Amino acid sequence: MGTIDLNADLGEGFGNYRMGDDEALLGIVTSASVACGFHAGDPLIMRRVCATAATNGVAVGAHVSYRDLAGFGRRPMHIAPEELAGDVLYQLGALQACAKAAGTTVAYVKAHGALYNTIAVDPDQAGAVVSAVCAFAPGLPVLGLPGSAFLTLAATAGLRPVTEAFADRAYDAGGHLVPRARPGSVLHDADEIAARCVLLATERRVTAADGTDVVVDAGSICVHGDTPGAVAIATRVRAALGAAGVRLAPFTP
Amino acid sequence: MGTIDLNADLGEGFGNYRMGDDEALLGIVTSASVACGFHAGDPLIMRRVCATAATNGVAVGAHVSYRDLAGFGRRPMHIAPEELAGDVLYQLGALQACAKAAGTTVAYVKAHGALYNTIAVDPDQAGAVVSAVCAFAPGLPVLGLPGSAFLTLAATAGLRPVTEAFADRAYDAGGHLVPRARPGSVLHDADEIAARCVLLATERRVTAADGTDVVVDAGSICVHGDTPGAVAIATRVRAALGAAGVRLAPFTP
Amino acid sequence: MGTIDLNADLGEGFGNYRMGDDEALLGIVTSASVACGFHAGDPLIMRRVCATAATNGVAVGAHVSYRDLAGFGRRPMHIAPEELAGDVLYQLGALQACAKAAGTTVAYVKAHGALYNTIAVDPDQAGAVVSAVCAFAPGLPVLGLPGSAFLTLAATAGLRPVTEAFADRAYDAGGHLVPRARPGSVLHDADEIAARCVLLATERRVTAADGTDVVVDAGSICVHGDTPGAVAIATRVRAALGAAGVRLAPFTP
Amino acid sequence: MGTIDLNADLGEGFGNYRMGDDEALLGIVTSASVACGFHAGDPLIMRRVCATAATNGVAVGAHVSYRDLAGFGRRPMHIAPEELAGDVLYQLGALQACAKAAGTTVAYVKAHGALYNTIAVDPDQAGAVVSAVCAFAPGLPVLGLPGSAFLTLAATAGLRPVTEAFADRAYDAGGHLVPRARPGSVLHDADEIAARCVLLATERRVTAADGTDVVVDAGSICVHGDTPGAVAIATRVRAALGAAGVRLAPFTP
Repeated sequence: MGTIDLNADLGEGFGNYRMGDDEALLGIVTSASVACGFHAGDPLIMRRVCATAATNGVAVGAHVSYRDLAGFGRRPMHIAPEELAGDVLYQLGALQACAKAAGTTVAYVKAHGALYNTIAVDPDQAGAVVSAVCAFAPGLPVLGLPGSAFLTLAATAGLRPVTEAFADRAYDAGGHLVPRARPGSVLHDADEIAARCVLLATERRVTAADGTDVVVDAGSICVHGDTPGAVAIATRVRAALGAAGVRLAPFTP
Repeated sequence: MGTIDLNADLGEGFGNYRMGDDEALLGIVTSASVACGFHAGDPLIMRRVCATAATNGVAVGAHVSYRDLAGFGRRPMHIAPEELAGDVLYQLGALQACAKAAGTTVAYVKAHGALYNTIAVDPDQAGAVVSAVCAFAPGLPVLGLPGSAFLTLAATAGLRPVTEAFADRAYDAGGHLVPRARPGSVLHDADEIAARCVLLATERRVTAADGTDVVVDAGSICVHGDTPGAVAIATRVRAALGAAGVRLAPFTP
Repeated sequence: MGTIDLNADLGEGFGNYRMGDDEALLGIVTSASVACGFHAGDPLIMRRVCATAATNGVAVGAHVSYRDLAGFGRRPMHIAPEELAGDVLYQLGALQACAKAAGTTVAYVKAHGALYNTIAVDPDQAGAVVSAVCAFAPGLPVLGLPGSAFLTLAATAGLRPVTEAFADRAYDAGGHLVPRARPGSVLHDADEIAARCVLLATERRVTAADGTDVVVDAGSICVHGDTPGAVAIATRVRAALGAAGVRLAPFTP
Repeated sequence: MGTIDLNADLGEGFGNYRMGDDEALLGIVTSASVACGFHAGDPLIMRRVCATAATNGVAVGAHVSYRDLAGFGRRPMHIAPEELAGDVLYQLGALQACAKAAGTTVAYVKAHGALYNTIAVDPDQAGAVVSAVCAFAPGLPVLGLPGSAFLTLAATAGLRPVTEAFADRAYDAGGHLVPRARPGSVLHDADEIAARCVLLATERRVTAADGTDVVVDAGSICVHGDTPGAVAIATRVRAALGAAGVRLAPFTP
């Protein structure tokens, strides 16, 4: 029945602040997108998450962001491509040192929050992130929205584009995410979410908000790490995938 | 007549702020201790300094600091060793990504400001920096004060300790730096500074504040990059060393 | 049976991060020491806490700190008095604007974390905080440790020193706090904590760790806002004080 | 021949970094727009600028910005109005404490950099700044671009809108600033700049880039503080205005 990767955004605490249950999720997912200190994350948290990921065979990805701790990286910024490329390269290196110290390595890159959304459509910022990843490690896998400017430019630049679907987000009939502001854009029922993940993993399909089935390509499925019930939902998703005969494994080598 | 390394602390601007003349000094020194973003430095500046250093054959070192941009890393902080090790590792990785993108590598580590002084005497903080460097790159050279706790612990941990002297600082009869608060602790005459550097490089001696000669071991001589006349002084030092038959070369391979 | 003030350290979230249950505690305490953005707190949180405090008749105090978000203000810093005074004045003004917008005012000042402990014994830093408060509002009440350098200097400078006791901390036979590192330094039993608060409020006494009774002067009792069970403990303390006939009221006019 | 205000953006250093010659400009201008720590400025600099302004009879304005030290406040940010209003209020209060300690007060508000440009056209962000100023001090003067959303909303909210012209910027035939990216958008000749300022102050006119004369309303003329030759240009402007019989005075009471 094939193989799928489950990823979660982890290490999103900072200093005295905690967010999500990193330890529990690192026992469920196969890839961890680790905050690198610009929207969340600090060196101690980064080392700890990398260490547990290494122990558990979870792949480590760099969850890079705008420099915006106060806004948790959720505020779009108009930033010169050269500056953005520098910020991304800096974060990649910082996480790589933590990963290496933990016996693992940065195996992929995913943008966070506002940067994730912006590089789906803005070729200048997308190109800046691509150039930073190329400077860091040519050929590295990058995770992004299907059809995004980011994945297109990444492919052209010789990186390995990997598409991502969201376990708990509603899709429209065109296969796009329903904006968060709309009612019903986020699903909360663990059984429903788990069933969608099985459909995604086995048939590359999802039931859209209007009831029709749409094709959604997903090299990885993102489960949320910081919502109430996150661990319970991720656990349910993993169990359902296993019961359906889907093998869980990182999309990275 | 032997070989000596000249190092300067570079890349100490931030965002819109500039400090020192990095370009000019990268034409004079053989090693550049590059700020990593915690007391100064930003990703663009780090990349630019690394690129010019690579072009000029200047070795790149990581100038790691407490996290204190507002205080320029000059305010001693009581920080848990685990936190300090994390902060240092983070900075090392960030600079390494910039260096690698510029075709060079982080060849040594030097602490900045208050951290430099603290790890000369505080074994807990010194050990934290040593552990971070070991986690980053076993055997890496580290630059520090002769007789410091940092160099002692570094040697024990298998790192390569390299002693540093200061071109423009007064020494006492015991071979220690005269504290900055004392009158006459910093020299300003380019010819006098150049003559001291020649003596340091050729005879491992310096004339102390009381007129006596003391032995000062120096694997590298630090010239300042941000003082008025910094470029003129460094130029004079380099010329005097050349005239005395001293070869200038990085202390790193 | 007299009157006592209950204070808690509130508004300690930042951006996307939450800490403690500000709303609940603002229904229990009579004074709120509000984080001002240097160790925790952001403008939205500050406004919200001030607004609820104003509605509930809770006095607003400025909980000023070193500039150390990554360390939550818990790391002692050697900082020049002039710089520290500037940082404190800045925080006081920022909170005052939030308080004024909410129809209230900064009625007292309390230092946070490492700064609280340092100014108990360091006259330079204590004097810097005192000078900032005097520049902000001559005669303002300040909350601190009995016998501290801070309260002594504050009194001399014409501020109004107010002593603070801690509901859940063990005291030694000399009337000093048992250091946090020691076993038993923090109490967890709500009934025991409540009984101590009644003794403090009615007889200015506390039972020390060795079983003897010691005099502890307290113009205000601090209940913690961010520990597990904080709300339950504070509720129990308030109820016990009420049952003992102690009136709860801010120590400020 | 009437009266005009000259303002400059001052206090734009941070920590160890200096920018512009605050002291010299405070001897020339009549209003100082003081950075409040979010794009530049720190408490010591803020106090120092306020103190000199008070001594020299220069009005103090709050030069408020996005929270973006790394980008010097020059990067547009999509930020929720409530968050922006909080950030502005925080800065206003922080500067007010510094001003009050120096014997003066925040007499007006001006936005900096990207925020200045955004609130010229974006009613949501403009409204957020207006609401913060109203919460801080109803009726306060605010400085902005003629015809901007900011000044329109400020007037409606009972603030006092004051128009600003730029001494060294080219205008088009419609009376709008020529974008900085265009050649010739910034003037450098001190005599030409001074002559324009006289025309602005005496006839409310400026010669546009196409040679035509356009009406430009200016309650204050901004001279730059951080460009090479800034002091020389400002000095020349002041002298020319004086020679033309224009009185220089703050636009605030």
